Amino acid sequence: MADPIRFYFDFNSTFSYIAIHRIDALAARHGRNVDWRVLSLGHLFHAQSIAPPPTIPAKLKYLALDFVRSCSFVGLPCALPKVFPPDVKLARLMFCRLQRHDETAARSFAKAVSLALFGHGVDVATAQQLADASKPIPGISVAEIEAAAADPKAKKAVISALDAAVADGMVGAPFFVLDGEPFWGADRLDQLETRLKEKA
Amino acid sequence: MADPIRFYFDFNSTFSYIAIHRIDALAARHGRNVDWRVLSLGHLFHAQSIAPPPTIPAKLKYLALDFVRSCSFVGLPCALPKVFPPDVKLARLMFCRLQRHDETAARSFAKAVSLALFGHGVDVATAQQLADASKPIPGISVAEIEAAAADPKAKKAVISALDAAVADGMVGAPFFVLDGEPFWGADRLDQLETRLKEKA
Repeated sequence: MADPIRFYFDFNSTFSYIAIHRIDALAARHGRNVDWRVLSLGHLFHAQSIAPPPTIPAKLKYLALDFVRSCSFVGLPCALPKVFPPDVKLARLMFCRLQRHDETAARSFAKAVSLALFGHGVDVATAQQLADASKPIPGISVAEIEAAAADPKAKKAVISALDAAVADGMVGAPFFVLDGEPFWGADRLDQLETRLKEKA
Repeated sequence: MADPIRFYFDFNSTFSYIAIHRIDALAARHGRNVDWRVLSLGHLFHAQSIAPPPTIPAKLKYLALDFVRSCSFVGLPCALPKVFPPDVKLARLMFCRLQRHDETAARSFAKAVSLALFGHGVDVATAQQLADASKPIPGISVAEIEAAAADPKAKKAVISALDAAVADGMVGAPFFVLDGEPFWGADRLDQLETRLKEKA
């Protein structure tokens, strides 16, 4: 089977939400798997000397509108959380903890958490909030999420994703790498799919 | 007839090149005219406190690749000029000078100049280079382009476009405003067209 598509995302990234809900189906249509890697987008921006878009007032205003419109055009519900940027540190760690043993559960968790946050505007900062947001998924409990907060392997996975992302030239989230070729943004999913068709 | 689509661009903007060659046909498919406004993108970034993307090494690298790919996917030739960012001050002034008397010639000039610059990598800084790039278009000569350099009305038009762009919340080029709704980027032409279809 061909190499998986590397997919870098963060839970606090609006456009990652769209990609989280679309990338697996897109890849599957072309016989590819996806290598999901969560990282801290703030640290990525710092490493690349990029000002986070929400810190620029004119960009914040435009991007909020653009995000609502982009969700509507792909049929995803959309709501901006009251606290922005939201605290997603625990979500990242729990995703990595799950991923070690159950990739399917980790992806279901990512979909549920991002849907709660950017689909319904619900905070997902605490273990209880995360457990509520991801309730029917097996292997998830408040105790497990609290354990993720102190899981050194999970922390290491988040840091190692950042190092790999910088090496791949990531400049914003979501970011995809297909056979060495980078694609930045949920609005590049179409070009990514065009490229997959060309390779068929 | 419905209001025209406002279209802000600059000659030194890679993705404006794509929009310059696509916006009129897109608007015409939906019975709209386009209100073309050239401005200085450098001054726009300054006014909005945005770091120009090419000043960030990782973004410059990604955007060069993304630009080549985006041109190829819409069937436009693509070449990056040796001098980047290119000097396009005279091109802006000549566009505005032409626009006062002959809108069609002004748009043909914009298409020819941007094609020379980003389609074929040819410099368009001087009056002679601009005249060569736009040769078969009526009303254009080296003398006319030299006159544009000292045309106070042309200079005023470029400045007034900047003021209007800031008021419209422009954050990058190309930028479109359809009935008050902003769209940023050549990669939003699809969403712009979807919105036009919804209004039909």
